[in-house]
Amino acid sequence: MKWGYRFMEMFELVFQPEGKRVKVAFGSTILEAAKAAGVDLTSICGGLGACGKCKVIVEGKNVSPLTQAERKLLLEAEISLGYRLACQTLVRGRMVIRVPEESRTGKQRLQVEGIETRAEPNPCIKKYFVMLTKPTLNDIRSDADRLLDALQATYGLEGLKLGYEALQRLPLLLRESDWKITAVIWKENLVVDLEPGNTSARAFGYAVDIGTTKIAGYLLDLNTGRVVAVDSLMNPQIPYGEDVISRITYASSGFSELSKLQQVVVDGINQILKVLLEKTGVKRWEIYEMTVVGNTAMHHLFLGINPKYVALAPYPPVVKSGVNIKAKEIGVDINPNGNIYALPVIGGFIGADTVAVILATEIYKRKDLCMVLDIGTNTEVVLGNESMILACSCASGPAFEGAHIKHGMRAAAGAIEKVKIDPYTLEVQYWTIDGVKPFGICGSAMVDAVAEMLKAGIIDVSGMLNKDINSPRLRHGENGVEFVLAWKDETAIEKDIIITQRDIREIQLAKAAIHTGCATLMKKMNKGEADVDLVFIAGAFGSYINPENARIIGMYPEIALDKVRIVGNAAGTGARMTLISKSMRDVAEEVSRRVKYVELGAEPDFQAEFFNSQFIPYADLTRYPETSCLLKNLGKYPKKLPPIFDSKINR
Amino acid sequence: MKWGYRFMEMFELVFQPEGKRVKVAFGSTILEAAKAAGVDLTSICGGLGACGKCKVIVEGKNVSPLTQAERKLLLEAEISLGYRLACQTLVRGRMVIRVPEESRTGKQRLQVEGIETRAEPNPCIKKYFVMLTKPTLNDIRSDADRLLDALQATYGLEGLKLGYEALQRLPLLLRESDWKITAVIWKENLVVDLEPGNTSARAFGYAVDIGTTKIAGYLLDLNTGRVVAVDSLMNPQIPYGEDVISRITYASSGFSELSKLQQVVVDGINQILKVLLEKTGVKRWEIYEMTVVGNTAMHHLFLGINPKYVALAPYPPVVKSGVNIKAKEIGVDINPNGNIYALPVIGGFIGADTVAVILATEIYKRKDLCMVLDIGTNTEVVLGNESMILACSCASGPAFEGAHIKHGMRAAAGAIEKVKIDPYTLEVQYWTIDGVKPFGICGSAMVDAVAEMLKAGIIDVSGMLNKDINSPRLRHGENGVEFVLAWKDETAIEKDIIITQRDIREIQLAKAAIHTGCATLMKKMNKGEADVDLVFIAGAFGSYINPENARIIGMYPEIALDKVRIVGNAAGTGARMTLISKSMRDVAEEVSRRVKYVELGAEPDFQAEFFNSQFIPYADLTRYPETSCLLKNLGKYPKKLPPIFDSKINR
Repeated sequence: MKWGYRFMEMFELVFQPEGKRVKVAFGSTILEAAKAAGVDLTSICGGLGACGKCKVIVEGKNVSPLTQAERKLLLEAEISLGYRLACQTLVRGRMVIRVPEESRTGKQRLQVEGIETRAEPNPCIKKYFVMLTKPTLNDIRSDADRLLDALQATYGLEGLKLGYEALQRLPLLLRESDWKITAVIWKENLVVDLEPGNTSARAFGYAVDIGTTKIAGYLLDLNTGRVVAVDSLMNPQIPYGEDVISRITYASSGFSELSKLQQVVVDGINQILKVLLEKTGVKRWEIYEMTVVGNTAMHHLFLGINPKYVALAPYPPVVKSGVNIKAKEIGVDINPNGNIYALPVIGGFIGADTVAVILATEIYKRKDLCMVLDIGTNTEVVLGNESMILACSCASGPAFEGAHIKHGMRAAAGAIEKVKIDPYTLEVQYWTIDGVKPFGICGSAMVDAVAEMLKAGIIDVSGMLNKDINSPRLRHGENGVEFVLAWKDETAIEKDIIITQRDIREIQLAKAAIHTGCATLMKKMNKGEADVDLVFIAGAFGSYINPENARIIGMYPEIALDKVRIVGNAAGTGARMTLISKSMRDVAEEVSRRVKYVELGAEPDFQAEFFNSQFIPYADLTRYPETSCLLKNLGKYPKKLPPIFDSKINR
Repeated sequence: MKWGYRFMEMFELVFQPEGKRVKVAFGSTILEAAKAAGVDLTSICGGLGACGKCKVIVEGKNVSPLTQAERKLLLEAEISLGYRLACQTLVRGRMVIRVPEESRTGKQRLQVEGIETRAEPNPCIKKYFVMLTKPTLNDIRSDADRLLDALQATYGLEGLKLGYEALQRLPLLLRESDWKITAVIWKENLVVDLEPGNTSARAFGYAVDIGTTKIAGYLLDLNTGRVVAVDSLMNPQIPYGEDVISRITYASSGFSELSKLQQVVVDGINQILKVLLEKTGVKRWEIYEMTVVGNTAMHHLFLGINPKYVALAPYPPVVKSGVNIKAKEIGVDINPNGNIYALPVIGGFIGADTVAVILATEIYKRKDLCMVLDIGTNTEVVLGNESMILACSCASGPAFEGAHIKHGMRAAAGAIEKVKIDPYTLEVQYWTIDGVKPFGICGSAMVDAVAEMLKAGIIDVSGMLNKDINSPRLRHGENGVEFVLAWKDETAIEKDIIITQRDIREIQLAKAAIHTGCATLMKKMNKGEADVDLVFIAGAFGSYINPENARIIGMYPEIALDKVRIVGNAAGTGARMTLISKSMRDVAEEVSRRVKYVELGAEPDFQAEFFNSQFIPYADLTRYPETSCLLKNLGKYPKKLPPIFDSKINR
C-alpha cells in the first residue's frame, strides 16, 4: 500500500491503564492522541521534544523510529523497555500505550486562599425594585418608557438604556409580575436583566484568577461583599503546553488552536462555577458580574486574542486597559448579559494578576517601600509605594514547578515538599504531600534541599557538589555527581530519587533570575536592603516555600525576615476586590498606567547582576551578612570568595 | 388500533400540481402541512376558519369531517367536488391534495419606488485610514493604544472604544497590513471593524421596509448616499397569517412561534440582501449599517419582541424610541458587528413606517397643512405641519387587498386592476395585471368599480344595488343581488367574476374607516377641506388607485385633486434617509415624540362620523360639491338624501 492512501487511514489507540480509546489519523503524534482521548499526560515544553516529561511505553511497533531528541532525553534502559516521548512518536497503526505514573500531571495542590484586603461593597450591578402603573387609554406609554420613567421617578436614574434581551422579556414579565419588577442595572446605565417581584436582596458575582497552572473561582455576594464559596481546578490548557510560552506557541499556530485554548479555559471556568452553584444553590442568572485576572498570556487567551506578539520583542500586549465584555460573547455560564471585566495588564510580561496583587497588597497607597514577589514560571517583582511603582518580569522558568529537574514534579500527592539535612551526618529527613511514598521532588523541597546542602557543605557557594565528601548519598551517576535524597526502597518509583548537579544549576538559574529582578529594581530606585519595609511573597508556590531557605539560597536580597509576609493567592484577592467595588476598578486602571515596566534585558548591568546572582546566596557575600554568619558558625564559609562581576552602576 | 397510538404516526402528503411531499403527524391541519411543505397557499385569517381563502381539493377520505365553518364558507357544489378549507381539515392518513389556482398567493406586484427626498449623506459609519509606527523597546504601547492614539492624533477622535471582534483581529491585522489600517467607526465612538490598507472609499448600508405583505430592501453607498440596488420579496410571514392581527395571534401563542416569525422575516431580509450583493459585487462585511421601518407589529416581530399587547387595548407598544442592535444579535447577514437601527414607533397602531413617511414627505417642517394616507390593512392618516402633527390608525381591513371580497385577490398577475362602466350601456371595460385572463379583482379595481357603479346608477349613495335595472349583468345570485364584472368565458377560473352586495358593503366599511380618520383629524384641528394644502397618498396599494375614483367613493374628503400626490413607498424613502444621515435619526426620534396619536375609538363622535362615512361618497353631500355636480350631470343625484347622523362636535 502506498503512503498516499495511508494518510487518510484512522487507527484506534488504547491508553492504559485507563483503557481510554481514541481514533487518530496516520502520522498523528501520541501526544496529540492523548489530548484527543483526554488522557492526563505531562507536557511541559508543549511538544517540542525538549522537556522529556511525556514518556510513554508503546506496545507494538506501529510507530515512527526514535528521534535525536529521544536518544538524548531517554535512558538506554528506558529505550530497551519501550519508552518513547509521546510528542516525538508518530502513529502508524493500531497500538496500546501505557502512561507511567511519573508522566501524569496528577491532581496538584492548589492555593486559593489569599490575603484578606477588604474593599467597601460598591458593585457595578445594583438592583432596583419598582411598581408601575398599568397602561390606560389616557396613558399609553410604551412598556419600556413606563419602566424607565418609574426608575427615574423612584431612584433618579436618568438616561438608562434597556438591554436587548431585557426589552424582549419586558412585555410578558411586566404583566406576569403584576407590574412589580426588579431591574438589574449595570453602572447606573444599562438595564441588564429584569426579574419579577422584589429580588433586590440577591445579587452575586464571580471572581476568577486564571493561573498558568490553576484556576481559582470565588462566588461573592455583591450586596455584602462576602465570599460565599470557593473552588479551583487545574488549568485545562495544561495538556496544550505546561508553560506560557508553549501555550502561546500553540495558540499562534492557527485560529482553531487559539479558539481551542479559549474554549478549554472557558470550560474550566464554567466547571468551577457549576460546583459553586451546586454548593450554594445560587442560580446562574443571579450572577450578573465577573472579574478576571491572569498573566497577559492567560488574559489574552481567555479573551480569544492572539498572544503571539506578547512573546516577541518588544513584547507589546494587544490591549492594556481593562476590557468589558458580555458573558454570552465568551460563553461563560453566568447571566448571559452579565458583564465580564478583565483587569488591565501592565505589559506583555506583567499581567492583570500583578495589577490585582498590587491592589491586594495596597502598595499603591502605602508610604512604606514594599517589594512583591509573585513567584511562578515567570516571577513578577514589584517595588514601590504610593509615589512610584516599578515592576519587572523574571524568567525564573518552570524549575520550581518541577520541570528540568531530574525527579522534579509539581506539588501533587507524593511530592517531597520539605527537606532537612543534618549538617554533620548528612542524614536526610523529608516530608511528602499526603504522606505517601515519594514520586519526586516539588519546588519548595528543592529550595530547602539547596539551602540545606549549602549549610551541610554538600555544595559550595558556586553550587558545585563536593565530590570529596564521603557518603553513600553522594556518588557518581550517569551524568556526573549526584545526591541521593531518597533511596529506591523508600520511593514509589522503584528508583532512587536524586538531585543532580544539573538540577542544582537549574535552581541557581531560577533563583538568580528572581534575584536579578529584585536587585535591578532596588538599584533603579537607589534603595538598599534596609530601605525595604515589607516583602510580600505571593502565588501558589510562594505559599509553600520556607522564606528563610529562599533567602539563604539568595532568591531575594537579605531583607530582615520579620518584614516578609506570605500572602498566598493575592491575585485572587484583587479579583474579588474589583468584583465588589466599582472604585477599585478605577484604581486598577490607574495602577496599570502608573506602574513603570522595567525590561530587565535592556538594563545595562543585567548580565553582571545575573552572573553575581547565580552564586548561593550571591557573589558578594557582604550583601548577605546573616547568611555569611550562619555559614561561618557551621564552618562552611568559603575559604576562597567567589568573583564579583562589576556592574557599571553601583548599588 | 387505538387513537393513542395513532397520535404518534406520521403520514406523507403530496401537494399537487407541484408534487411537493411532506410528512406530518396525525392530527395536523392541511394548512400546517402546506406551510411545512413550502406550498403557496393563501390564508388571510391565519387559520381561524374565517376567510374561506385556503380552499383545497382533498383526494381520499383520510381527513376529519366537515366543520361548521366549512359548511358556511364553501358552496354545496364545492363540497361535492371534495373542496375543503385547509385550516379546518385534520390529517388522518396519507393523501393527495390539490391546490387550485384561486387559493394561491401568487407573485404579487410590489411597489418599491418611492418619493425621492434627499438627505445630505452624514452616515453613522465613517472610515478612517491610519498609518501606525511599529512597537520598539522604547515604545511598547499595546496594539490597541497604538491604534487609538493614532486615530486621536490624525483625526482628533477621542474616547473611542474598540469593539471585541476588532480587538481580537487587531494583532494579526496590524502586522499583515504593515501597520496601515482602516478603522470602521460608528458614531465617532466605537471601532466596529478593521480593514487592512486604505478602504475608506467603500462603505455600504442596507435600508429595509418590512411591510405586512412585502419587504423592500435598498443597498446604498454610504459615502454618496446613492441607491446602488433595490429588490423586494413577499413577506415570508404570510403563511402564518396574512394580516397583522393573525400574525400577532400566532406569535403570542408561544415563544417558539414568536421566534419562528422573527426567523422567517430575518431570512427574507437576508434573501433580498443576497440578491443585492450578487447584483453589485458588494461583500456582506462591507455593509456596516442597516435601518428598518415597519408597522409596530412588524417592528416588534423583527426584533423578536412579543407584540401581544400591541393588539390589546389600550394598545401600548413595548418600545417607542429607536432601537440600536448589533446585526449578529438578530442574525442579519450584514457585517456581524454592523448596527441595525429600527426607527421609533409612535404607538401600537402607528409604527416606524409612519415615522418614515413623515420624514419622506417632510411634513414635519412644512408650513403647508398636509394630509397623508398610508393605505393598507391598517391605514394610517396623518395631518399636520411644522407646528403640530396628529396621526390615527384606521381599521380599513384587508378588503383593498382582496380579502372578504367574493372574487377579491391581491395585485398579482390575472387580477383585474382597472374598471370602467359605460353609464348608459352598463358595458364593462377592464384591464388585468400582465394582460392575462382574469382570476379575480384587486383593490384598485374595486375602487374603480364602486365609483363607476355609482356614476352609472347601478348603486345608490347608500351602496344598494339597484334591482330595477334591466341588464344581464345585474342578477339574483345565491346570496342576493350581484353584478357580473367578467363573464365566465372571459375568465381563467371558469366562473363569472362578480361583485356582490356584500362586496360593496366591505368596500364601504373600508373606505368609511379611512374617511373617519381623515375627518376626525380635521375636526380636531378645526380645519376644513379648503385648509388642506397637500394630500400624500402612500403605500403599495395607494400607488395603483385612481385618486379621483377614490375621492368619488369618499375614501377621503373632497380636497382639490391638484393637491393630491401619489408618493409610492414613502416608508422606504424614510428608511433610506435615516440610513445615510445621522441627523435624520434625531428628526425621527423627535417626530416619534411630537406626533400626537389620536385613538379613533375614544373620540366622542366616532360612531356618528363612521355612520356618515359609509355613504358613497358621504351622508352629507354638501361636503362633496364636485361629486354632487357630477352625479347631477349624469342624472344620478339621489332624489332622497341620506340621513345625517349629528355628531356632538360640529365640523
